[in-house]
Amino acid sequence: MTALPLKRLDDVAALDLPGFDTGAASAAEARQMTLTKPPASLGRLEDIAAFMAGWRGMAQPRIDKAQALVFAGNHGICARGVNPFPQEVTAQMVANFKAGGAAINQLCRVSGADLEVVALDLDRPTADFTTGPAMTEAETLEAMATGAAAVDTGADILLLGEMGIGNSTVAAALALSAFGADAQGWVGRGTGSDADGMSLKARVISEGAALHGGLSAMGKLAALGGREQAAICGAVLAARMARIPVMLDGFICTASVAPLFAARPEALDHCLIAHRSAEPGHRQLAEKMGKRPLLDLGMALGEGSGAALALSVVRGALACHNGMATFAEAGVAGA
Amino acid sequence: MTALPLKRLDDVAALDLPGFDTGAASAAEARQMTLTKPPASLGRLEDIAAFMAGWRGMAQPRIDKAQALVFAGNHGICARGVNPFPQEVTAQMVANFKAGGAAINQLCRVSGADLEVVALDLDRPTADFTTGPAMTEAETLEAMATGAAAVDTGADILLLGEMGIGNSTVAAALALSAFGADAQGWVGRGTGSDADGMSLKARVISEGAALHGGLSAMGKLAALGGREQAAICGAVLAARMARIPVMLDGFICTASVAPLFAARPEALDHCLIAHRSAEPGHRQLAEKMGKRPLLDLGMALGEGSGAALALSVVRGALACHNGMATFAEAGVAGA
Repeated sequence: MTALPLKRLDDVAALDLPGFDTGAASAAEARQMTLTKPPASLGRLEDIAAFMAGWRGMAQPRIDKAQALVFAGNHGICARGVNPFPQEVTAQMVANFKAGGAAINQLCRVSGADLEVVALDLDRPTADFTTGPAMTEAETLEAMATGAAAVDTGADILLLGEMGIGNSTVAAALALSAFGADAQGWVGRGTGSDADGMSLKARVISEGAALHGGLSAMGKLAALGGREQAAICGAVLAARMARIPVMLDGFICTASVAPLFAARPEALDHCLIAHRSAEPGHRQLAEKMGKRPLLDLGMALGEGSGAALALSVVRGALACHNGMATFAEAGVAGA
Repeated sequence: MTALPLKRLDDVAALDLPGFDTGAASAAEARQMTLTKPPASLGRLEDIAAFMAGWRGMAQPRIDKAQALVFAGNHGICARGVNPFPQEVTAQMVANFKAGGAAINQLCRVSGADLEVVALDLDRPTADFTTGPAMTEAETLEAMATGAAAVDTGADILLLGEMGIGNSTVAAALALSAFGADAQGWVGRGTGSDADGMSLKARVISEGAALHGGLSAMGKLAALGGREQAAICGAVLAARMARIPVMLDGFICTASVAPLFAARPEALDHCLIAHRSAEPGHRQLAEKMGKRPLLDLGMALGEGSGAALALSVVRGALACHNGMATFAEAGVAGA
């Protein structure tokens, strides 16, 4: 359990964040060159091995414990009618997670992740961000602290996901306020919006971005975000302090950390994007952050589903890295 | 164990191949609509569930046993200097597979596949296809029979891979002879070729395609292919007869079944392509076959490595399909 040393949101800029261990990563890359395969033939699996080595600070990192955290929140922006589902669904889906009936439960079982669900004040939605800030600074810091405290510092990798009716609109607002560009380009169908719904979402996020455009990067998290977005930011920072690599899920999860990226881009250096969401804004968002999602399977569910699925790829990468014979060990000839 | 009823290669055209069970697939699609997620939000995982249902002939298919088969062969075309590695490496890598030291061993362990390696007459390479046919019809049928016999008819899914120094050239020749187009577009670096090596490969496959261009689709398998390519074709047909879906690995594995596709495209309807190889010809090959690889991780190793990695995606798809609660069961409201 990690407490973030933040008194104000803008203190994020001054946080002392551990860096990438280039020595461990170089040792991992050197090991890859000795394994019984043509150089670079494992493609991104080799990059993942070096990434994990650098963040874990060891040449042969392992995943003994993978933690998956799903944060849930409710949103005042639903008052604008941006989502066809009632807000009660957030709590109903949290109950479904706890009973083991959701997609994320099945996917965590397949890839071997320990799932925990954290519901944040579901009966107290944030405020409508088109009329004022969604959260106060204190509320935002509290949600970040909850997210940080949920991180198991004994884990070797952290998977993050979210649930919250209306939060594809919140995510689009955070992306627009962090990266600008065209509001239409950040909105998608979310959970069941039609073309009219998407136009409404674009209008709503434009209003929000205009109203809160003068704030700092982290100020925009409070003004436009929700509790689960703030909790994800807190968990990302707590994981970083414990040198735990993070797998961000899809569009909403990635947009949740857009304020951190805007405040200091290197704050996300220990994060992979697991899956390119079918939500159209995700491609642009990943490009702005300089990250390429591992998977592209047309999913747009959230819950951490893409992260849980991609964990198997990371497990495969490390299994090869740690388990393969070298050319010398196997008596295989070189070119 | 399956024996293929083939006296001649061209008898493939008359083989009685089981079809897709549209009733089971429709039942799977109907079930997906009841699960606690927005419709289609699991993207390709939903397609995979219906695909597996249709081929297994049941609305809720499971993977209790996944078999991975890696076939190995040696190639007379190496006399033309198309590969910088010596042919002994094929047998050395087979020994590495059997000792558990290769990438495929680690990846099968992660995704839960039972690996078997079948070496086909490694001390008897095929003939140089630029001077005559690589194999006789009898040799080709024998390799196909070996491939078919290796299929465990108790498996729920079959993963296919290959190993054979020189076989990226063999694969490119099969692709060129099946689909035409520009020879350069079918060749890549394979295992360690430079630009000169790639030019040589393009010249060699052009010579082979010209020499054997008048043959039937399956005749070209004998004339240009190798034993592991024929074994893969045999395994694909045997799996089809047992209604076992197949995951083809990357470029070489996919090119191995190009003759089957050219003979009768529906013969590959039960096959998925697991991973888009970094070999440049694979994108074109997959498009010609109307298939979209599940993964795209820059790998170009062969051995069935991409298929073993993608098995986790298929497991995830079926875990969601079979394990998720319905809206009614979970008490979650609709739109």
